[in-house]
Amino acid sequence: MANVEKLEQLYEGKAKKVYKTSDPELYIVEYKDDATALNGLKKGTIRGKGVVNNRMSNHMMRLLEKEGIPTHYVEELSDRETLVKKVSIVPLEVIIRNIAAGSFSKRYGVEEGTELAIPTIEFSLKNDDLGDPMINDYHALALRLCTEEELNTIKKYAFAVNAFMKDYLLKAGVILVDFKLEFGKLSDGTIVLADEISPDTCRFWDVKTHAHLDKDLFRRDLGGAEEAYQEMMKRLLGE
Amino acid sequence: MANVEKLEQLYEGKAKKVYKTSDPELYIVEYKDDATALNGLKKGTIRGKGVVNNRMSNHMMRLLEKEGIPTHYVEELSDRETLVKKVSIVPLEVIIRNIAAGSFSKRYGVEEGTELAIPTIEFSLKNDDLGDPMINDYHALALRLCTEEELNTIKKYAFAVNAFMKDYLLKAGVILVDFKLEFGKLSDGTIVLADEISPDTCRFWDVKTHAHLDKDLFRRDLGGAEEAYQEMMKRLLGE
Repeated sequence: MANVEKLEQLYEGKAKKVYKTSDPELYIVEYKDDATALNGLKKGTIRGKGVVNNRMSNHMMRLLEKEGIPTHYVEELSDRETLVKKVSIVPLEVIIRNIAAGSFSKRYGVEEGTELAIPTIEFSLKNDDLGDPMINDYHALALRLCTEEELNTIKKYAFAVNAFMKDYLLKAGVILVDFKLEFGKLSDGTIVLADEISPDTCRFWDVKTHAHLDKDLFRRDLGGAEEAYQEMMKRLLGE
Repeated sequence: MANVEKLEQLYEGKAKKVYKTSDPELYIVEYKDDATALNGLKKGTIRGKGVVNNRMSNHMMRLLEKEGIPTHYVEELSDRETLVKKVSIVPLEVIIRNIAAGSFSKRYGVEEGTELAIPTIEFSLKNDDLGDPMINDYHALALRLCTEEELNTIKKYAFAVNAFMKDYLLKAGVILVDFKLEFGKLSDGTIVLADEISPDTCRFWDVKTHAHLDKDLFRRDLGGAEEAYQEMMKRLLGE
């Protein structure tokens, strides 16, 4: 590990804790097994989830860095802890969809599983009190949530992540249905991919059976979430 | 009137009836005094509204035609009836906002009256059963609701309508807060502005007092809707 000391906890979210370190530009993220859904109304635990999400997310970010997409990833410190660059999070959740599912299907009355004519991108305002409402480009600029240049960079990276991950996952027998990304700004203003890429933030379907390999098993009380998380780690990291 | 006969009623909406005519490319629209709000949950009457909406809408569409924006308007037949071109409606409500109000203010927690850094455009899927959910460009294309070229034309026209109307109304002492447009396709595929432009579909505020001169008086049970509609007609048509 880079010569960095773990200092006090800065923040505890639904699925992760963030700690300061002795380097003001670096944080340590620690992944928990806590699972929530329905904007925090539903709470539970998926045993081993923190390890899977930490290791899978780091694996994907290392691959994405090689594809030219800058990320906050620095170094995996343990099964649950990762050293990341300090960012200020852009207050937009970025959702890419390849296949209709979840809120999209409900909102527009489109059957889950319908392939979309093009991959779509959508933004939600990160605000739990408001229920993370959907927001569009014009609104984001009108409310000065980011600049037009930042928005274009985020869109370019998000579609590039999708193109890479879709192919990569298919080779592991997994369909990438949709996923959520978050981006942050380094202290010099550079936009980088932040947060995580995991079964918490993506919908993964088995290519043959269309079985869920993600948090929908928890959200929808289908059972088997622990096994599905382990299965995803096995398919992607070979263990 | 063009040599056209009014035939059977084709459709009755919340605020208008549409009739076939002896010309298959022309319809007659008849404006009612019925007022609804909250997606039809609230019902009432604003006496004289049909006349105001018909005459104001025709007045605005004649002006917009001169600005190079094609519309469905053909000829005013009476106080409540207008001859229009037959269109197939693009299933998107197009909302332009200059100032935060209504659903925008609630959704994003922005105080009503806040001036937006740029005018915004947003789309809603026209579907009462789904509650006309907000939808973005990518979704509209992914669900094949229109083509990218049609979407770009609609955006261009909608912003042009805003630029013209904002100036025009300000000369009449009225702030154009936000408004909803609908577009249709002629049988040859040409995109034209359809539906109406009225206090039912726009938020108008008096420039000095910020008093509502629109349907919010009905939606919010503030009283004085009839007088406000008459006041808008007086300011725009001088009567």
